[in-house]
Amino acid sequence: MIEALRVQEDRLLADLENLAGIGATPEGGVHRPALSAADLEARHWLMARAAEAGLETYIDGAGNVSAVLRSGVADARTVLCGSHLDSVPQGGRFDGALGVVAALEALRVIKEAGINLPHHLEAISFTDEEGTWGGLLGSRALAGQLTPDDLDNPRGDRHAFEETLRAAGLSKKGALQARRAPESIHAWVETHVEQGLRLEEAGVPIGVVTGIVGIASYWLTFIGRADHAGTTPLDRRLDALRGLAEFVRQSRELVTNRFPHGVYNCGIVEVLPGAFNIVPERVRVALEFRHIDPGKLEAMREALLGLALHVVEVEGLGLEVEAKGIQEPAPTSRDVINAIEAACGALGLRYLEMPSYAGHDTQVMATITRAGMFFVPSVGGASHNPREFTRPEDCVHAGNVLLHTVLRLAGVTDSTPK
Amino acid sequence: MIEALRVQEDRLLADLENLAGIGATPEGGVHRPALSAADLEARHWLMARAAEAGLETYIDGAGNVSAVLRSGVADARTVLCGSHLDSVPQGGRFDGALGVVAALEALRVIKEAGINLPHHLEAISFTDEEGTWGGLLGSRALAGQLTPDDLDNPRGDRHAFEETLRAAGLSKKGALQARRAPESIHAWVETHVEQGLRLEEAGVPIGVVTGIVGIASYWLTFIGRADHAGTTPLDRRLDALRGLAEFVRQSRELVTNRFPHGVYNCGIVEVLPGAFNIVPERVRVALEFRHIDPGKLEAMREALLGLALHVVEVEGLGLEVEAKGIQEPAPTSRDVINAIEAACGALGLRYLEMPSYAGHDTQVMATITRAGMFFVPSVGGASHNPREFTRPEDCVHAGNVLLHTVLRLAGVTDSTPK
Repeated sequence: MIEALRVQEDRLLADLENLAGIGATPEGGVHRPALSAADLEARHWLMARAAEAGLETYIDGAGNVSAVLRSGVADARTVLCGSHLDSVPQGGRFDGALGVVAALEALRVIKEAGINLPHHLEAISFTDEEGTWGGLLGSRALAGQLTPDDLDNPRGDRHAFEETLRAAGLSKKGALQARRAPESIHAWVETHVEQGLRLEEAGVPIGVVTGIVGIASYWLTFIGRADHAGTTPLDRRLDALRGLAEFVRQSRELVTNRFPHGVYNCGIVEVLPGAFNIVPERVRVALEFRHIDPGKLEAMREALLGLALHVVEVEGLGLEVEAKGIQEPAPTSRDVINAIEAACGALGLRYLEMPSYAGHDTQVMATITRAGMFFVPSVGGASHNPREFTRPEDCVHAGNVLLHTVLRLAGVTDSTPK
Repeated sequence: MIEALRVQEDRLLADLENLAGIGATPEGGVHRPALSAADLEARHWLMARAAEAGLETYIDGAGNVSAVLRSGVADARTVLCGSHLDSVPQGGRFDGALGVVAALEALRVIKEAGINLPHHLEAISFTDEEGTWGGLLGSRALAGQLTPDDLDNPRGDRHAFEETLRAAGLSKKGALQARRAPESIHAWVETHVEQGLRLEEAGVPIGVVTGIVGIASYWLTFIGRADHAGTTPLDRRLDALRGLAEFVRQSRELVTNRFPHGVYNCGIVEVLPGAFNIVPERVRVALEFRHIDPGKLEAMREALLGLALHVVEVEGLGLEVEAKGIQEPAPTSRDVINAIEAACGALGLRYLEMPSYAGHDTQVMATITRAGMFFVPSVGGASHNPREFTRPEDCVHAGNVLLHTVLRLAGVTDSTPK
């Protein structure tokens, strides 16, 4: 009875608890930056747990760690599931970790049930999802999207990165060879904590992700004139900070009214020359905005940059705009959404369809295979900090929905021959 | 005929030109931070010019450099005049330099006229007016207001300061012994470029300074919550940057409407944690405001801090206020103002009374003696940069008004016996 299969709650929760002990912080979170000693220890722990369960283990050239349950079918492809074990600095114990533990548990349950698999199953932990050295590094390597340039220009210090790779038994060359043929992959599914409030507020246990929002990033620089802040009358100043102030005020209204499903942020501000007694000449602000709809993302770009131009015209300032990067929206696969929703239906769990406003490995996987993702609630929406918390029953839901989604994606039914 | 005395225009302008060659920058300004090689060279140049003119020269323990013309009268006191030779980094050639050259020239003319002086005259260049190591350092030393603590905690590196003092032949002990008895000083007068637009716009050559504005400085910190800028809906954020934006916008209106003679500035901004994708949690801003009237300065404090409190209440934010320092308004002496205005009258030069919105050594001298100051126009109001420019005729006016002010303050009239 495939429909009756369930994860072992105690085992799944004990794994989460044990994993949270690796790189544990006094505040109750974890500190496991990618390829740090704690991250490496977590990966060894995963390999050991997989081996105990009789699963094959595998590490690719990018340091992605996998547990594999093979199909006996000749032309079988692979249903991949998982997430990541690394954390942001001083992060929480659920982000990424839940998806890896749920994937491990799903494979264990399927192995224990002795099911004949039409396709291989693989639970994977991707390297450096959080971007200590390069965001989504492991999934980009697997998708063949990592370039020598990415590896030569990591975030942080280049030599430290090279040393860290070496210490982890990895190499740039190996990372570039981690690509898998897309045709070898049958589908991808990830479970993750929501990092937001929508599920909690709706009282719904599962969020089925319709896509990962696109993210556009810009540096805007408002340019005025550096005058003496004593001797220059107020009405003679070209104060670049006034440009920022008007932009911050009006942009909030603009996005709220015109782009109700979009979000944006001004997260970094730099003022030059930067003295108590000098009127700000250059105010540089980091602008980021997100939308699930590519057309709306472009419309947000036009509206926000148009607003900046309007503000500098009114204030008599100059403006410099530097595009920092764009990450296109990544819609998920309707096949995988259907599989997740069918799994929820079979388990009697309500779900909501929703975009993901945060980036995930799923956005990379969506470019090479049918990819999908679902969320479970984060209490209070806490994310990327030690207060991150997902209730035990929701962690168990994550495991069961993943289990039944993977079974559906692998084509396992009650009529599958044992 | 005392009234007929005039500075030698060519000599004064040539001195200004030669002085501008010391520490000259490619942009046409000067770079003479206090006690730098260029500053020391400028001081040697001043000593040499004074000696050539047959004036006594003197360097006190704080490195203040003087040219002295002695009275033969037994109980003579000293009429001090001058300014400073140091500049801000990459500064202009008139700020401070004009006041020193005008004072030197005034003493030369008086010496050449062979006048019997009822009081000693002294042209002085004060050390580090601009605050490379400590603002108004030389005048504070002379006024007895420099403390060992000031010298142990210079701006910049302490060891570099000690090394710099040594290299200039100075010491902390010497600087603390530079105090003069206030009763030895008869009056102080300084001429300086305006560093503003008021004289130029009024078409008036002389600004008689009624006082130096008081300056209050605060750090204000707006406190919100650091949330994920993707997953947190806009209406759930506590964005500290919104506090700053509203404060910047509303404070301009407040000061313009309620304090027409006050100015203020938000010159430094620091945002934490400071990432594209994290909502600002702490936004710290450097607030400075100035007024000539002590009561109005206090009213500005109440109004601006009240506005900050109002803003955080509306935005749901927190506020931290840290007083950084206050410098009380320094009214100038009516005796010196009268002498300056009488000199202008005798020279047929129109004048305006006005406050100084910038700090000057005069504010220190005002605490120990009758002190006064006058401005000549700065073209375009340029200040603290290489574009600083004062027309030759205005430099000559500075010299002549200083000459006749000093003569009046020293009690020299046509009936003074030769």
